[in-house]
Amino acid sequence: MITGKNYIGAEKSATGNKTYKTFNPKLNSETEWTFTEATSEEIDTAVAEAAGAFKIYSAFSDTKKANFLRAIAQEIEALGDTLIQTYMKESGLPEGRAKGERGRTMGQLNAFANLLEEGSWVDATIDTAQPNRAPLPKVDLRKMLMPIGPIVVFGSSNFPFAFSTAGGDTASALASGCPVLVKSHPMHAATGEMVASAVLKAVEKTGMPNGVFSNLNSSGIEVGQQLVMHPMVKGVGFTGSIKGGTALYRLANQRDEPIPVFAEMGSINPVVVLPSALEEKRDEWAKSYAGSITLGAGQFCTNPGLILGIKSSTLDSFIKTLGESIVEIDPTCMLHPNIFKGFETGKNELSSQGGVNIVAEYSEDAAPNYAKQRVLTVDGANFLKNTKLHQEVFGPFSVVVSCENADELAEIIEKLEGQLTGTILGSTEEIATYSYVVSALQSRVGRIIFNGVPTGVEVCPSMHHGGPFPATTDSRFTSVGTSAIKRWVRPVSFQNWPQAALPEALKDDNPLGINRLVDSKFTYDKIE
Amino acid sequence: MITGKNYIGAEKSATGNKTYKTFNPKLNSETEWTFTEATSEEIDTAVAEAAGAFKIYSAFSDTKKANFLRAIAQEIEALGDTLIQTYMKESGLPEGRAKGERGRTMGQLNAFANLLEEGSWVDATIDTAQPNRAPLPKVDLRKMLMPIGPIVVFGSSNFPFAFSTAGGDTASALASGCPVLVKSHPMHAATGEMVASAVLKAVEKTGMPNGVFSNLNSSGIEVGQQLVMHPMVKGVGFTGSIKGGTALYRLANQRDEPIPVFAEMGSINPVVVLPSALEEKRDEWAKSYAGSITLGAGQFCTNPGLILGIKSSTLDSFIKTLGESIVEIDPTCMLHPNIFKGFETGKNELSSQGGVNIVAEYSEDAAPNYAKQRVLTVDGANFLKNTKLHQEVFGPFSVVVSCENADELAEIIEKLEGQLTGTILGSTEEIATYSYVVSALQSRVGRIIFNGVPTGVEVCPSMHHGGPFPATTDSRFTSVGTSAIKRWVRPVSFQNWPQAALPEALKDDNPLGINRLVDSKFTYDKIE
Repeated sequence: MITGKNYIGAEKSATGNKTYKTFNPKLNSETEWTFTEATSEEIDTAVAEAAGAFKIYSAFSDTKKANFLRAIAQEIEALGDTLIQTYMKESGLPEGRAKGERGRTMGQLNAFANLLEEGSWVDATIDTAQPNRAPLPKVDLRKMLMPIGPIVVFGSSNFPFAFSTAGGDTASALASGCPVLVKSHPMHAATGEMVASAVLKAVEKTGMPNGVFSNLNSSGIEVGQQLVMHPMVKGVGFTGSIKGGTALYRLANQRDEPIPVFAEMGSINPVVVLPSALEEKRDEWAKSYAGSITLGAGQFCTNPGLILGIKSSTLDSFIKTLGESIVEIDPTCMLHPNIFKGFETGKNELSSQGGVNIVAEYSEDAAPNYAKQRVLTVDGANFLKNTKLHQEVFGPFSVVVSCENADELAEIIEKLEGQLTGTILGSTEEIATYSYVVSALQSRVGRIIFNGVPTGVEVCPSMHHGGPFPATTDSRFTSVGTSAIKRWVRPVSFQNWPQAALPEALKDDNPLGINRLVDSKFTYDKIE
Repeated sequence: MITGKNYIGAEKSATGNKTYKTFNPKLNSETEWTFTEATSEEIDTAVAEAAGAFKIYSAFSDTKKANFLRAIAQEIEALGDTLIQTYMKESGLPEGRAKGERGRTMGQLNAFANLLEEGSWVDATIDTAQPNRAPLPKVDLRKMLMPIGPIVVFGSSNFPFAFSTAGGDTASALASGCPVLVKSHPMHAATGEMVASAVLKAVEKTGMPNGVFSNLNSSGIEVGQQLVMHPMVKGVGFTGSIKGGTALYRLANQRDEPIPVFAEMGSINPVVVLPSALEEKRDEWAKSYAGSITLGAGQFCTNPGLILGIKSSTLDSFIKTLGESIVEIDPTCMLHPNIFKGFETGKNELSSQGGVNIVAEYSEDAAPNYAKQRVLTVDGANFLKNTKLHQEVFGPFSVVVSCENADELAEIIEKLEGQLTGTILGSTEEIATYSYVVSALQSRVGRIIFNGVPTGVEVCPSMHHGGPFPATTDSRFTSVGTSAIKRWVRPVSFQNWPQAALPEALKDDNPLGINRLVDSKFTYDKIE
């Protein structure tokens, strides 16, 4: 079933001579599969086919694209247990997670299908003509969102399903009317190939043009760089490290025609523990956070890597319970030996900084690639003066900062880089009392949470999974939820365009029955 | 009245020693005013004040910000004829244009005030909690747009009112809740200072925080560069040349924290003349286009610089009439001797290319800085192979391309760079017959016009004044119309946030009475 080849549209191709294998972190050994990296010529062919497919696919109705997305979800499900086993082999993640993430991936595809079937996402905006307006007549002007062209999606390491081959970036780009070229993640190339085969079955079954989807193998940075620099590529989706995402972003800006790169990168997701939370629910929050920090071996972009409190005996007691609770949790396997090594290096580097104390670390023996969780503590002054402590350590790890007072707490938040999430633990009254702390936090994050944990990212219209740089390269767009489709489109205005030639979404009689802004009023009505 | 000083918030400051004067192109001599360029320290002070003002101003209600915008419009009008005379002295533009552009500028400020008072622009999106959902409960999640921080606006040369000190970029940024730092355009610094004084009067009268608006003088590139690189600056609006806009865009991407630069740059605004237009309305279109090409001395970003037709005797006849009509129009004064020189250089450079013929040029004597309009013609093959002919010449100038056939016409369109506008002259039936030509044009432009001229940019919700690079640096956003506000905001999600602490736009009882997406349905209703 796994061929190790590239999928250039429907064609399987392996003309190159650079090969690589994936790795089973639980067995601590290579898998049985070998993959052939895409050549420069294969990349050119795939992009040219995508550009050709764009002309056809971009003109398809939303209903037709919705059928395609639903078919992808069905074909992924049809791969059954073989797909789940492959995912587990290549990621070291447990079966429950594999099945949950598969469900989420199918749910995302179906959510975009629903969005297309409803149809209002194109932001149709109409200003009707006023031929008698003085001093100048007003033209008829109608605007809607249109797809931009072939998109490159970089598969992530930590979501082999939900943010990889047919994950959120791919689903949103295909929904918008853009073809997708996936740069397969080298850690789970077999999982990626299986999902790619499902997408291509759906292409065939629903009559989509060849080239609307390709899957390219890659173990280094060259394939990705060539894709991002290709003149026919019009946008990029990426989930991964700050270093990788920023490099791609800057590369794309060097093109003759710069293109948008939506990179969702690092985040330490600060959590502010206010006094009432320590008074009233100290042990409850300590236990919840021990769970949140270690969830999925801490390999979530919303992992709480920084907890901020004001020094007190109750904060000390919270830290103690957090430490005791976290070491009771069994270590779990990380995605890959390189990720495990990165965790060990990062954890030790931060632990050796001045003024830092280790609160708790799992100290029993653990199998290779199993992450031993660690929690550090440091005072506010040391944290403020050492930005190394502000950096993400990818894994089950967190730093608790004991601040001198609320002013120091606010100062720390203001000095943090951009974040995906921020959390306030406390009472409703404290949001007012500590309004400057809350405002500071809000200005650094994309999502602000009250009395909860940041892990768990709901897929829905109101989700914003994005934040100021370096959480993402573009804080105005989300990579999770249906608004993610807005990354792959641009508005086009039609001036005095004849009814017969207008897109359906802009016709007077509103044949799609969508919500539109007509003469500055929102309405589902026809224009009489 | 004109002090020549920088306005650092309410304070007038001129601590530097670099001065410059503005120029009256009609008199071909310097004006009486002298301006002192902002120093590095003055820039730092202005930005710090803007960052301070942001904390207060961003929390103001939309109603309060609307009052401020309306007050700016009133204070501009209150400057009366002195402002109009100053504009005319520094731009060489006639009184009618000055008054019209002042009206448009006030109209833009009031349009954003209306948008704020209506309130739905924040895209409020709410998904209510489902505590009993299996396998996991659904959290309550609410999202809206929030301002990003201090914005730098570069005044344009060609719209001393409507795209400068209190023009569309400033109005949209202030509307969004962002403070503005204007880098004054050196060609009309006195006009800029007068408008700045009006803005500052409005700041005082409506109780806005000091630092919400500053106006900085600059004759070179250093002030602009320092502003764009300042860590507290969060976005940039620019209208001007491809060279200038691209340089700022690439500079901003080199920052530790990259920021968005919305540069509206060059465009030749291709016009496709289909056979029926030549058969039925040849002379009418020729005369209309003679007017559109020379309007405002051709100094509009939507000036039609490229006309494409399929070779025929009727096309020849169209070109002949266009030439005859355009030389009958009296030349008008350009904005500045440097712009006049640029026009002469560009016009002559394109005229000397292989295969190019001069169809018509105004050949009588004209006053200094008055632009003599010129029209060139070239065949499709020569146009295709020489990209110099694809470049904008800023002024009353156009190239008519006689294509071999419709395929060559489509090929030419596909090879054009991104454009603000594209126009089709023809019949409704021809949109279907030449669908590949129309599709190709649509994919290169931000606004597509049927049987009209591209000059004239309506300020309304459905306007998209933007297009693929290099027409703009970000084709997803417009610089004209109320959607321009979307450039200065980012979404923020509130998870399980208490009702009392939510922004008004997101509260259950919808106190602003705005249109919201609640549980995937658009509604003005409260949440029960």
